[in-house]
Amino acid sequence: MGFSLHPRLAADTAPVCDLDLCTVRLMNDARFAWLVLVPMREGAVEITDLIQADRTLLMAETCRAADALRAVAPCDKLNIGALGNLVPQLHVHVVARVEGDAAWPGPVWGSGAAKPYDDGWMDSLAAAIREKLA
Amino acid sequence: MGFSLHPRLAADTAPVCDLDLCTVRLMNDARFAWLVLVPMREGAVEITDLIQADRTLLMAETCRAADALRAVAPCDKLNIGALGNLVPQLHVHVVARVEGDAAWPGPVWGSGAAKPYDDGWMDSLAAAIREKLA
Repeated sequence: MGFSLHPRLAADTAPVCDLDLCTVRLMNDARFAWLVLVPMREGAVEITDLIQADRTLLMAETCRAADALRAVAPCDKLNIGALGNLVPQLHVHVVARVEGDAAWPGPVWGSGAAKPYDDGWMDSLAAAIREKLA
Repeated sequence: MGFSLHPRLAADTAPVCDLDLCTVRLMNDARFAWLVLVPMREGAVEITDLIQADRTLLMAETCRAADALRAVAPCDKLNIGALGNLVPQLHVHVVARVEGDAAWPGPVWGSGAAKPYDDGWMDSLAAAIREKLA
């Protein structure tokens, strides 16, 4: 069964690149350096829906994305989470938090409205992360 | 180097059991069925601080804890996250969310004050989860 990205995730993010399991997206919210990893497995909702090999891949790709994000953006603390209360398609957030950021020390989810990037900035950041992930 | 649980985590949770990597704790908050997994690796702050084998174990134990939690508590959606903005010791939250619960559809972290369990209920729940994890 083919994989297709949930329309809400597609609307809120820009493409970075595809890894073996996940398609990596950059959240269009200039308040936080924020990646979303979506396992390309149609119908997966929970991490436990993935087979063993995919779970291990998801962990590896999450760590790889975290390292890439930290290489290009300030980061005092990683926040990693799979929630999906609003968007059921399984996706993992990887966020570089900075002390004093717009939601600190609370979570980014549900914290105010996204602040879209100014033209060009999102593409530049996505390109920098893509290079680190290559 | 010996492992010791962060005092804040110790104060907020009750013991469930120890797995190969993580000590499993139950959050003392009757609003949510909520486990906390703490890898017994002194000094670990981020998931990326763990060696490869421990990352794979963490994924496996997170899924195992999620399955045990869902077996004994209502769950419409799992919320799994490693934040650590307040408590630096690496810990993974595994929360069984129910539509309409006290924080739904927002995250549990930072959502109001914990509601401690009435006497006996926390021990009963911890025992039920321990049995599922055995």
